[in-house]
Amino acid sequence: MFQHTKQLQYNAKPERPDALFAAKLQELVGGQFGEMTVMMQYLWQGWNCRVPGKYKDMILDIGTEEIGHVEMLCTMMARLLEGAPSETQAQAAAANPALAAVLGGQNVQHAIVTGGSALPRDSQGVPWNSGYIVNSGNLLCDFRSNVAAEAQSRLMTSRVYNMTDDPGVKDMLQFNLARDTYHQQQWLLGIEQLIEDGFTDGIEDSHADEEKTEPGHTFYTFTEGSKGPEGRWAQGTTLIGDHQIEVAPGAPLGDDVNQAPAPNPLHYVTYDGSMGEGKPGTAGGAYLQGAENLLSKAKEALTPDKDDD
Amino acid sequence: MFQHTKQLQYNAKPERPDALFAAKLQELVGGQFGEMTVMMQYLWQGWNCRVPGKYKDMILDIGTEEIGHVEMLCTMMARLLEGAPSETQAQAAAANPALAAVLGGQNVQHAIVTGGSALPRDSQGVPWNSGYIVNSGNLLCDFRSNVAAEAQSRLMTSRVYNMTDDPGVKDMLQFNLARDTYHQQQWLLGIEQLIEDGFTDGIEDSHADEEKTEPGHTFYTFTEGSKGPEGRWAQGTTLIGDHQIEVAPGAPLGDDVNQAPAPNPLHYVTYDGSMGEGKPGTAGGAYLQGAENLLSKAKEALTPDKDDD
Amino acid sequence: MFQHTKQLQYNAKPERPDALFAAKLQELVGGQFGEMTVMMQYLWQGWNCRVPGKYKDMILDIGTEEIGHVEMLCTMMARLLEGAPSETQAQAAAANPALAAVLGGQNVQHAIVTGGSALPRDSQGVPWNSGYIVNSGNLLCDFRSNVAAEAQSRLMTSRVYNMTDDPGVKDMLQFNLARDTYHQQQWLLGIEQLIEDGFTDGIEDSHADEEKTEPGHTFYTFTEGSKGPEGRWAQGTTLIGDHQIEVAPGAPLGDDVNQAPAPNPLHYVTYDGSMGEGKPGTAGGAYLQGAENLLSKAKEALTPDKDDD
Amino acid sequence: MFQHTKQLQYNAKPERPDALFAAKLQELVGGQFGEMTVMMQYLWQGWNCRVPGKYKDMILDIGTEEIGHVEMLCTMMARLLEGAPSETQAQAAAANPALAAVLGGQNVQHAIVTGGSALPRDSQGVPWNSGYIVNSGNLLCDFRSNVAAEAQSRLMTSRVYNMTDDPGVKDMLQFNLARDTYHQQQWLLGIEQLIEDGFTDGIEDSHADEEKTEPGHTFYTFTEGSKGPEGRWAQGTTLIGDHQIEVAPGAPLGDDVNQAPAPNPLHYVTYDGSMGEGKPGTAGGAYLQGAENLLSKAKEALTPDKDDD
Amino acid sequence: MFQHTKQLQYNAKPERPDALFAAKLQELVGGQFGEMTVMMQYLWQGWNCRVPGKYKDMILDIGTEEIGHVEMLCTMMARLLEGAPSETQAQAAAANPALAAVLGGQNVQHAIVTGGSALPRDSQGVPWNSGYIVNSGNLLCDFRSNVAAEAQSRLMTSRVYNMTDDPGVKDMLQFNLARDTYHQQQWLLGIEQLIEDGFTDGIEDSHADEEKTEPGHTFYTFTEGSKGPEGRWAQGTTLIGDHQIEVAPGAPLGDDVNQAPAPNPLHYVTYDGSMGEGKPGTAGGAYLQGAENLLSKAKEALTPDKDDD
Amino acid sequence: MFQHTKQLQYNAKPERPDALFAAKLQELVGGQFGEMTVMMQYLWQGWNCRVPGKYKDMILDIGTEEIGHVEMLCTMMARLLEGAPSETQAQAAAANPALAAVLGGQNVQHAIVTGGSALPRDSQGVPWNSGYIVNSGNLLCDFRSNVAAEAQSRLMTSRVYNMTDDPGVKDMLQFNLARDTYHQQQWLLGIEQLIEDGFTDGIEDSHADEEKTEPGHTFYTFTEGSKGPEGRWAQGTTLIGDHQIEVAPGAPLGDDVNQAPAPNPLHYVTYDGSMGEGKPGTAGGAYLQGAENLLSKAKEALTPDKDDD
Repeated sequence: MFQHTKQLQYNAKPERPDALFAAKLQELVGGQFGEMTVMMQYLWQGWNCRVPGKYKDMILDIGTEEIGHVEMLCTMMARLLEGAPSETQAQAAAANPALAAVLGGQNVQHAIVTGGSALPRDSQGVPWNSGYIVNSGNLLCDFRSNVAAEAQSRLMTSRVYNMTDDPGVKDMLQFNLARDTYHQQQWLLGIEQLIEDGFTDGIEDSHADEEKTEPGHTFYTFTEGSKGPEGRWAQGTTLIGDHQIEVAPGAPLGDDVNQAPAPNPLHYVTYDGSMGEGKPGTAGGAYLQGAENLLSKAKEALTPDKDDD
Repeated sequence: MFQHTKQLQYNAKPERPDALFAAKLQELVGGQFGEMTVMMQYLWQGWNCRVPGKYKDMILDIGTEEIGHVEMLCTMMARLLEGAPSETQAQAAAANPALAAVLGGQNVQHAIVTGGSALPRDSQGVPWNSGYIVNSGNLLCDFRSNVAAEAQSRLMTSRVYNMTDDPGVKDMLQFNLARDTYHQQQWLLGIEQLIEDGFTDGIEDSHADEEKTEPGHTFYTFTEGSKGPEGRWAQGTTLIGDHQIEVAPGAPLGDDVNQAPAPNPLHYVTYDGSMGEGKPGTAGGAYLQGAENLLSKAKEALTPDKDDD
Repeated sequence: MFQHTKQLQYNAKPERPDALFAAKLQELVGGQFGEMTVMMQYLWQGWNCRVPGKYKDMILDIGTEEIGHVEMLCTMMARLLEGAPSETQAQAAAANPALAAVLGGQNVQHAIVTGGSALPRDSQGVPWNSGYIVNSGNLLCDFRSNVAAEAQSRLMTSRVYNMTDDPGVKDMLQFNLARDTYHQQQWLLGIEQLIEDGFTDGIEDSHADEEKTEPGHTFYTFTEGSKGPEGRWAQGTTLIGDHQIEVAPGAPLGDDVNQAPAPNPLHYVTYDGSMGEGKPGTAGGAYLQGAENLLSKAKEALTPDKDDD
Repeated sequence: MFQHTKQLQYNAKPERPDALFAAKLQELVGGQFGEMTVMMQYLWQGWNCRVPGKYKDMILDIGTEEIGHVEMLCTMMARLLEGAPSETQAQAAAANPALAAVLGGQNVQHAIVTGGSALPRDSQGVPWNSGYIVNSGNLLCDFRSNVAAEAQSRLMTSRVYNMTDDPGVKDMLQFNLARDTYHQQQWLLGIEQLIEDGFTDGIEDSHADEEKTEPGHTFYTFTEGSKGPEGRWAQGTTLIGDHQIEVAPGAPLGDDVNQAPAPNPLHYVTYDGSMGEGKPGTAGGAYLQGAENLLSKAKEALTPDKDDD
Repeated sequence: MFQHTKQLQYNAKPERPDALFAAKLQELVGGQFGEMTVMMQYLWQGWNCRVPGKYKDMILDIGTEEIGHVEMLCTMMARLLEGAPSETQAQAAAANPALAAVLGGQNVQHAIVTGGSALPRDSQGVPWNSGYIVNSGNLLCDFRSNVAAEAQSRLMTSRVYNMTDDPGVKDMLQFNLARDTYHQQQWLLGIEQLIEDGFTDGIEDSHADEEKTEPGHTFYTFTEGSKGPEGRWAQGTTLIGDHQIEVAPGAPLGDDVNQAPAPNPLHYVTYDGSMGEGKPGTAGGAYLQGAENLLSKAKEALTPDKDDD
Repeated sequence: MFQHTKQLQYNAKPERPDALFAAKLQELVGGQFGEMTVMMQYLWQGWNCRVPGKYKDMILDIGTEEIGHVEMLCTMMARLLEGAPSETQAQAAAANPALAAVLGGQNVQHAIVTGGSALPRDSQGVPWNSGYIVNSGNLLCDFRSNVAAEAQSRLMTSRVYNMTDDPGVKDMLQFNLARDTYHQQQWLLGIEQLIEDGFTDGIEDSHADEEKTEPGHTFYTFTEGSKGPEGRWAQGTTLIGDHQIEVAPGAPLGDDVNQAPAPNPLHYVTYDGSMGEGKPGTAGGAYLQGAENLLSKAKEALTPDKDDD
């Protein structure tokens, strides 16, 4: 359950409105790596975390903080959009080309849809969707995704930071940059903790003993003259398993070609018969064979009974 | 430029068709972390990589390999879908409940849309979209995303691996598992190489000297009784900058509240006047003030000229 | 800023796992009118509300409550998914058709993607997106949307309620039904309050004095023999403005036909010249004429100066 | 079945082209609350309406009218886009900054994709999708959604109205404003009619006797110092059921915490064993227990028969 | 403007309900090539057609017919969904595996969302979106898209036709198949008419005299041992221009490599300096150079004036 | 399996950067008919082609070529984006309105998200999704889609070609135009080859003998005064089947009206009982009746056995 206070976690006070910058700042609100993404990603991971105690609590602590970050950005956006253009300004714009530029560059949904507020969309107007987030239950995998999200988020914040010279906006972004610096480390340290607690060796390797050996430590190159083999990833030993990393030219490792089988005649797929007759869809794979066996046994069992009469 | 050979990189030979399993395998084709995602992510990163040589070549090597992985999976899918149900089977299904189950559980687009082939969609039928991939140009950030993608992809492959006992399918997935094991390390070693080559210290920290200090090394907790502070992420020193990590209760750090300013009267936003009069949209922030100054100077410059006459 | 407690707002304790029901319950999590929708809709409306005090606080109170509702549903989902099928079960399913049915009807992403947890998606696997929510700043319009969301949400909850006989699930849904009953009224009473406070007359009617008169109180019918005119909406007086509602057959009210003008020749649009020559894109509407006037005046102003030499 | 006439329902005659305004007008064509939305929403509700006569006919009357509204807007758009910029204009734009502004602010898909026509997208270029519409079969719920759609649609029309001073555009929008004024009332009067006809009491309350009592008439507050309790929604009696509305602080109402159960070991979810052993997916909830009972009874029934031999 | 009649264009009378088949039939309602697609595609093309008379009228005739086809399918769907499962049926399903299969295979949104009616979605539950349709204004291009849409639509109808043996459903689909047969020809004959009327030679070839010569009639092969050169597309003469089609191995035709330039230092893109210093974003391409020239001329013009004083 | 070379298929060398043009060029990268679409469409069709030899090889040849076209466009984009604006430029823009225009018209994700590289999105920022492509297995249908894709793609390339005067950009687009000219013919010749090889008569007509006769060769008109009947599509003989094409007014051809049946009472759909009682969802169509028959027979078979004892 959650509680709310009216105070923001940090100040979101621009010195002056700036509708053009607000259009750009949308990327940090509702973009692939905006605040909505980390808020939703951490809340879902926290709710679904199966290790009670420090892991679950930590994830929900940061998830809860991120709700407040969306709140800060929405407040900042509303202030940047104060007095944003919303009138017929053909005359004015013709006489004032810089106004025309603002009219062109602003996000008109800020006027038409929200009436001067943030949109749950990215800087191109694409609605946020949950295809951006991940919640696998495997903390190593999810922490890897979280490090990446914080790194990408910080990079985009840094780029946006260069697009304004408003001291109030910069002040808030300096706070966001710092959190992203810390949060990258928080998730990396979380992986260290997972290793220390014996949950993983740092590489997702379930079914490790069943995977093929050679492709597990070989760098294949598919480009003539590739310098790919010169990097650390193609030399020395693997991080787990202590294999020597090998380099090999990309080549077929089996004897298979990309040929699909004869199609079902009821699908009207173009076919020349070269792979034999297609099978109409009366079978459904392994399930049915087993089921038919079972049923025929049941029938046999029943039939004799009748004969008993 | 690319070339193609008809041979697959590795075998994709199921022992028997299985339409229900094919529906699940779609997740590894067109899901958030399916083969289409890594193929497109690496190709785009490679094309846009600004460090010629080992980095750019390595990324394009793996991107090229992944095109072949989509090819393998599509071939496998077509073989699993051989003879999948496509007819009216009300009678048959009523007499054979296991067939009814297959009819219920199969993906009907495999029959209706592709005629027995893979779909560029996930296991729920959601079309693949490029919102799944990232290409920031910053190799640290992108390699972090790539480690995460390989870890998540391997985890999902491992889960799918448990859903079949077909030796041919398992054989191919053992190859995929191995590649994902190696590729996780490839990207982690790529980060080591980036550090060694002096491109990064492992944390995205552009504008490092402008970010706030304390929020850069503090774990805030927002849950009463949270055990979050017990983890490594809340103790010891930071990974960069050698700060002591601190713990603090989540609390407002500034003096700001979440209040939006008076709205533009032309937006018909509900408002009680308590924050003063709203500003109609005749201004566009800093741009306009500057432009007006410029224009008025230009006018001044012109006006005296006329006076010269 | 937000705080979190580990306790749920209400119990989410199913008596037993049920993977098939969990697939249906997804609709109440991430569907068009699921809990994610109301959570996000109210938080955004609250953050952007321009009337401080009872309105803004009320909206944020309910928005904060709804975060906890998503949490309740996620917890319920994880419990319903306990031990959900995730193995190869061809043999078992063939021998046990009911298991085959579960395998067919369950949502395989619950196994492959989340490892036994809820997805931020609807019952068909479609990711939640922010195109479901609205935040216009006009409280009348938004409260109308909120009544609708609560009514639709309650209806879907009621339908899902019939799909289980698990007492623990029913217990939680009885709580949700009650909240939706209250929340419908909360928003309707909110509209009453808006009227009482003088913010609206209950109908969005900005620019009321500029709209056309007759189409503002006429029911047009476009179906031969339509009984549409028999309803209250086609009789008596309007709710605002005290007009007699009129009925008229749907007919062109002006003299215009659906003809597009001659196309730009540079667009290669198929055209027979019957509407005269198309205009290439050298003009941009009203802006340019004004701008050109301004510039030519400036030029004129400059040119005489030179003549002065 | 439908018929078409070439005449528009109302005039769509702009006085002059205006590519920048056309980009904004897209919101009223293909936005969340544009004409495509109400057209599709009403047609689907009408086709699926289960009350023949005045309700079904009325819904289809307005649905049919709305097809014509999309037609009007498309015609208007083509006329606004006449001669919109489509050539290389670097030189011209450099010499004419206002042209540069138009080039920046116009929607380039109007030139590249449609060749000077409307797009079935919103003002940010996002394709219209059917996730915007609702068709629940419950007329109360759907009429609530329809009132909201008309109110939001009218508000956005009003905002767009301020962005032009073209008398022809304003003339058409005055017609649209009037229809939206009437349509809001049409749906509200539809609800009155539903109540009068005994279909509802105005609140969706199926399963009314099973819902929890107290949460059905209580305003919970989750913000310290919230003024939410000062509104009508927190005082007086409910609209149905004649309860006194109560106010209570948001607090856990049960004894449950947000803990997910032990995970399935085959999901490789991170877990410390603290909740006991996870269950592999061999069970599927209530269905299977019943099915196994049935099958074992059948087996028993069969086995003795064999013994009879 | 449009009119409606209550009668369907053709009968939509299934002999009996069939919830499983209804789930499949969704593909023909809201799939990529379902009736919603052709309805919307033709209406938009018709409204935007620039050749008045037989072309514009024909397109709107078929567009208007297709609205009625969506209506037929929605009516059929509601009838197929009559009495579809919507209750808790764990007990019943356990005792009746075929019921369990239906519960698994049905589309639960038919119960939860629409209450027994069609959804504006495809057979996998993906909402219809306007990214499926095309409206370019070029009738050759659009008629090519329309032939394709009718061919794909007919193929999917044919596949779905095999999935039912209900005489009433088959009766309606026989009507749909016939329309798709005719409509394919209608659009092909439309292309013949366009050629006869002199609008095109059957190939979109605007800027024909500027395109490169050789790549305009050469089949490049990128696969070792490709048999691609054996087809008619690689032999004989072109359809326009009377060139001999040539075959060539895929090879670089210029001297360029896939190297991106030095990045902007403010983007924090990883870069080793090997391509010189990156340029920060102070320039915007050709526009600015021209603009600066203009402004500096203006300044010069102004400055001497002052000197005149 | 695929191989890569560092050389581009053709040069992608702009003479100078142009951020505004780059924003437009995105349409040819990730739009509905951009290079990503044809690349993915052909690769998937090729992998799934069931006719080995010239057809499969040809499709994969062109699919492989198109990967290289995406590569060319990405390289071109990075070069056009060199030095694109990324800094605070309020001061500069105010003093230089043309810079303001560029700032407004550029795609800010080129700076914020990719750091100066192409996006896998269209010119409005909408992510590419696989709903754009088709892979039906029926080569006639797919070649029809491919002709359309190439025609639309060429048209959009031609329109974009007019938007630049950069000789390097024009040089590359001249190559693209030529390929699109050839590829349109390639697919049309492919259809000729399919006919020659006996796979089709050029019209998708599976189940030809079951479709209705008259609707297979009739043009229905739904517009008063339509000139639609004047075209070739309404006169002469059909392309297959040698029927005289007929013209008829659009009229109901059966006796059916658009009435949905009585709803399931558990769906709470508004209903007046006029069509009898609704059926609760205890039945699932034809499947269940058959299943019940089977089970009751099985029970009968079992029961007598017991009686035998």
